[in-house]
Amino acid sequence: MSFVVKMNGALNDGIHSKGMNGNGVHHLSVRTHVSVNPAKLKSNRPRWTVRPSEMSKKTLNPIRAIVDGMKLTPNPEKPMIALSIGDPTVFGNLPTDDTVLQAMKEAIDSHKFNGYAPSVGYQKSRDAVANFYSCPEAPLEGKDVILASGCSQAIELAISVLCNPGDNILIPRPGFSLYKTLAVSMGIQVKHYNLLPEKSWKIDLKHLESLIDDKTACMIINNPSNPCGSVFSKDHLHKILSVASRNCIPILADEIYGDMVFSGCDFQSLAPLSSDVPILSCGGLAKRWLVPGWRMGWILIHDRNNIFGTGIREGLVKLSQRILGPCTVVQGALESILNDTPPEFYQRTISFLKSNSEICFSELSTVPGLNPVMPSGAMYIMVGIEIEHFPEFQNDVEFTERLVTEQSVFCLPATAFEYPNFFRIVVTVPEDMMIEACIRIREFCSRHYLPRSLDSHELDQ
Amino acid sequence: MSFVVKMNGALNDGIHSKGMNGNGVHHLSVRTHVSVNPAKLKSNRPRWTVRPSEMSKKTLNPIRAIVDGMKLTPNPEKPMIALSIGDPTVFGNLPTDDTVLQAMKEAIDSHKFNGYAPSVGYQKSRDAVANFYSCPEAPLEGKDVILASGCSQAIELAISVLCNPGDNILIPRPGFSLYKTLAVSMGIQVKHYNLLPEKSWKIDLKHLESLIDDKTACMIINNPSNPCGSVFSKDHLHKILSVASRNCIPILADEIYGDMVFSGCDFQSLAPLSSDVPILSCGGLAKRWLVPGWRMGWILIHDRNNIFGTGIREGLVKLSQRILGPCTVVQGALESILNDTPPEFYQRTISFLKSNSEICFSELSTVPGLNPVMPSGAMYIMVGIEIEHFPEFQNDVEFTERLVTEQSVFCLPATAFEYPNFFRIVVTVPEDMMIEACIRIREFCSRHYLPRSLDSHELDQ
Ligand SMILES: Cc1ncc(COP(=O)(O)O)c(C=O)c1O
Ligand SMILES: Cc1ncc(COP(=O)(O)O)c(C=O)c1O
Repeated sequence: MSFVVKMNGALNDGIHSKGMNGNGVHHLSVRTHVSVNPAKLKSNRPRWTVRPSEMSKKTLNPIRAIVDGMKLTPNPEKPMIALSIGDPTVFGNLPTDDTVLQAMKEAIDSHKFNGYAPSVGYQKSRDAVANFYSCPEAPLEGKDVILASGCSQAIELAISVLCNPGDNILIPRPGFSLYKTLAVSMGIQVKHYNLLPEKSWKIDLKHLESLIDDKTACMIINNPSNPCGSVFSKDHLHKILSVASRNCIPILADEIYGDMVFSGCDFQSLAPLSSDVPILSCGGLAKRWLVPGWRMGWILIHDRNNIFGTGIREGLVKLSQRILGPCTVVQGALESILNDTPPEFYQRTISFLKSNSEICFSELSTVPGLNPVMPSGAMYIMVGIEIEHFPEFQNDVEFTERLVTEQSVFCLPATAFEYPNFFRIVVTVPEDMMIEACIRIREFCSRHYLPRSLDSHELDQ
Repeated sequence: MSFVVKMNGALNDGIHSKGMNGNGVHHLSVRTHVSVNPAKLKSNRPRWTVRPSEMSKKTLNPIRAIVDGMKLTPNPEKPMIALSIGDPTVFGNLPTDDTVLQAMKEAIDSHKFNGYAPSVGYQKSRDAVANFYSCPEAPLEGKDVILASGCSQAIELAISVLCNPGDNILIPRPGFSLYKTLAVSMGIQVKHYNLLPEKSWKIDLKHLESLIDDKTACMIINNPSNPCGSVFSKDHLHKILSVASRNCIPILADEIYGDMVFSGCDFQSLAPLSSDVPILSCGGLAKRWLVPGWRMGWILIHDRNNIFGTGIREGLVKLSQRILGPCTVVQGALESILNDTPPEFYQRTISFLKSNSEICFSELSTVPGLNPVMPSGAMYIMVGIEIEHFPEFQNDVEFTERLVTEQSVFCLPATAFEYPNFFRIVVTVPEDMMIEACIRIREFCSRHYLPRSLDSHELDQ
């Protein structure tokens, strides 16, 4: 069976990376200009040795590392259901709006967006983003916006401008793996602060603050969260800002899922709540507009107390000149995408995600051994595994691996987010697949669940 | 007068970078956690200090550094003619082909290219590039192609995978400034090898070879050349390959102007001429297809002797996962762009560039004090200044500055390419502008040229 399990879209290249390695045995000879004993070699001629750089070796992708080590052979009798892919477009049930496509075609027909834009983006496109996100408490102008090649590059630019090798950054656990991938490749240390599942994934603020030291260059706050689907309350955000303010640590706010919150919940962006903490807020078209492949992201520079000053702004401009910003056609379409997309489009996506989340949550919360945490936004749901009740499996990786073997359902083990014994479900799949997947997960768990009395469990310890 | 002189498109952000700096005075307070004498401060509370990273400070753009230091005030009586912009689309006289635009619209209408692609690109798009550039002497498959966000990112990836901090790379002088900008920002040393204007900008091969040492990680060969417009002969390329082969140095071939050579001249790509030297050939849609803003570039991995092995290939895949490749719409259109663009389109561009180059060359070669070098391809012409005959000007920067003041003609001083006392003219401007510019340059020179007899000149020395 040639089924290929696709991964979290953001970091989904293992299959291809394997495909790249078809060139046979690694060449082992050594180039030596001076340090070789000529008696041992026929000649003094140098030899070939071309090794990948340290940086490329340090660019580690935990999702690949884990998933490539798994035996993912689906049950041939059941069609595969991949609940692992952080790409809302793969099943075709969540198309972007026609306005968005129309804006692109108009940008093409205008013949105006084929040349180089400034490396931080066209002024008009930056103005459009500023306008869209500006609010009285956190006003934005075009100069406060840097366009980037996806939110990924926005995050890369933000980390690159704020941190030096040897510094550390604070990142959430569980959290989106790109933060660590980027930081480690740049020689920046990561320190994980805990999110608390029993408190709807709020940050353990004491823990967060305890990690801060002289080398802490920034803290990354991801809200709404991948992989948790959690959304912080205004009150909690105020407390986060207090920690930052007390310790004078700038914030990188990853708000790519901003406004993607379920009815009854309120998304509050971080910047309007603080006038002193300097914030680089990263976002983009990927999730809310359902076009992740278009690679349009941005940094919003919030710095009302002038702490970043010109240095950080100039630094971002300089760094943007390395690869010259996102595709100009998408830039040309941006103003119309932001201003003309009908509100119903956003609403429809959110209602769908909420409904699917509720189905998934209510199905799995009655499965013995599983503890799903109901999300309030984004497109994920985290499910805790009472691993002591599944004695056949050591951990979430073995659990999810066997779930593929037996039930052809693939969920990403949360070890990929530094959070063992959970798994992440993506709720963008069509409803019938979501229902079917939950049925299969229930079947899987009931086969492997070993109930133990509280007493015997306590005796074990 | 509010005229804004636009720069070489690839590195054209100074104006915007200035626009970014509107936030007033730089904040000067210092964050101190431990190292402060509490007696001197009211409290132990840390203070804000957020400084741009070393890397952002080391990301230097020589074009900006030079141009920002120039007083570019055009003569109000003459409309500005900018011969400085390396963007063929700015004057509207060189539109891309309709096939190219049609391919984009079809990609959008297909609804198939909105999701994440693999970070190295869709397999089909990589296959299309491989197919387009494959030849019997240097066969390519999809696995040998890495798509990137413009040729700039292709170059960044190639340098990143081949070099470590402390290594050095060999780059041409005069040469495209991005090589140095990228390398220096990564802590890689650059060594310039000379191109010889009197030999149509051939490489001084002895000089090239003399620069190689144990720390040389790669040599960058740019053919056809920006800023020279020169095209290397097959024979010369063989000699370059000999140097690389003898010393076991891999090559980064910047062939973004590949096939953009004038009739009567032949473009020869580097890779087919060697079976042992491993070559990363960088290219893209920017120049030949006249859509630089679309940010579609690629690396072709040529490694028939398996010297890169899997290490470099895997390294490139890992590095590509940092920001996840170019816009999927352009990727979706790529196959059709490469296969369906009519040959007449390429021909038309080349004829135009040749004709404009000939006009410019023949006009300026009769101007006393100027020595243009006739190009054979790309879209540039370099003009030498006999600076000793222009005693009012110290160098090319002062010369081109005054050319703006008096004649409203802006040419990039070749100091920006590490090559003083030349300037670069971009030949993509409409013909009438090219003619008018040459007339004004002649007028300028005849006003400032001071003929000296050979004798008195020799006595000076
Ligand atoms: C939390 C988070 N931030 C950033 C990104 C990257 O977004 P983009 O595709 O725009 O690079 C993702 C993608 O999955 C994400 O989940
Ligand atoms: C020699 C050379 N290489 C690379 C590039 C960058 O190309 P791209 O716009 O595709 O990043 C340029 C652009 O001017 C160039 O002249």
